[in-house]
Amino acid sequence: MQALKEAIRREGVGIGSDIVKVDSFLNHRIDVALSTQMGQAFHEAFADERVDCILTVEASGIAAAITTAQAFGNIPVVFAKKGDHRNVGSDVYTAEVFSFTHQTMNVIRVSRRYLQKSMRVLIIDDFLANGEAIRGLMDILRQAGCELVGAGVCVEKGFQPGGQQLREEGVKVVSLAIVDAIQDGNIILRDD
Amino acid sequence: MQALKEAIRREGVGIGSDIVKVDSFLNHRIDVALSTQMGQAFHEAFADERVDCILTVEASGIAAAITTAQAFGNIPVVFAKKGDHRNVGSDVYTAEVFSFTHQTMNVIRVSRRYLQKSMRVLIIDDFLANGEAIRGLMDILRQAGCELVGAGVCVEKGFQPGGQQLREEGVKVVSLAIVDAIQDGNIILRDD
Repeated sequence: MQALKEAIRREGVGIGSDIVKVDSFLNHRIDVALSTQMGQAFHEAFADERVDCILTVEASGIAAAITTAQAFGNIPVVFAKKGDHRNVGSDVYTAEVFSFTHQTMNVIRVSRRYLQKSMRVLIIDDFLANGEAIRGLMDILRQAGCELVGAGVCVEKGFQPGGQQLREEGVKVVSLAIVDAIQDGNIILRDD
Repeated sequence: MQALKEAIRREGVGIGSDIVKVDSFLNHRIDVALSTQMGQAFHEAFADERVDCILTVEASGIAAAITTAQAFGNIPVVFAKKGDHRNVGSDVYTAEVFSFTHQTMNVIRVSRRYLQKSMRVLIIDDFLANGEAIRGLMDILRQAGCELVGAGVCVEKGFQPGGQQLREEGVKVVSLAIVDAIQDGNIILRDD
């Protein structure tokens, strides 16, 4: 997606060999026009599918999940919660997700009330690297008996294996930008 | 705001004397049409003001922050992060926020890059009870030299003192629904 790639070229910072810092427009400060366009792009990519619900995980996935849901005509968004939540209650699906960014194991939780059997669900997230978050969400969808439509991610780290592995397993993964490498602080994007 | 009050009457659950559970449409599952309408309502309430940026705190504030920013013509959203974040870096403003929901003290962080001096900032959050989160965000705005336009909250717990105290201090607080009490599991809403 052109506008996202331009934002990454203009504002993204590559750190070391694997960190793509895009917090000026994606996951700390949010460029809302760009986020809205990304939602439209995800809708376009999955427009042939029936989608009943968007599933994401707090917190950075929420913005793109909302704009995607708007593009689909205001379908509901459910976001998985991390850690203990007094408010979530005990009637939940859980999955374990290892965060490479924070080097911690997180439990994510979704209330059973919001995922019904046979619901067709599109996963949206801001990043795809090793695929841990998406696999955690897929695990929850399996427990709930939902059908996975696919996964839309804003930025895929193409040099980490998550995206390729998911595609090989038959998951429709749509990434709006793919980073092929970080070299001397430069973010090398894959051309379409 | 009528649509929000109707959603609270229809789906909200009062627990004990102080918990207002609205996670079927506000802070776990999100009713995206309602969220979009809430953004428009916040825009209406602050339409006379110049607003450069929306500030919220992860995770439940993000949805309404995004839709409010859209209603203001796609101004940027900045969301404060909780806890340690390898990605945020050290060049941050911080504030301490006590969460009554989780009974924990959280440090919230905003990168200094995204709040410039004299920027006019509107705070948006999903809940206002004792006002801790909004005071933490106000503290960060003070450190950054920003001007506080006001605070828009989806649901105010009118039986807790945060909203009244902020108003007495001259902060323009706009709540789209105010809960006056919880009685036998029923949520008593203040009439306009």
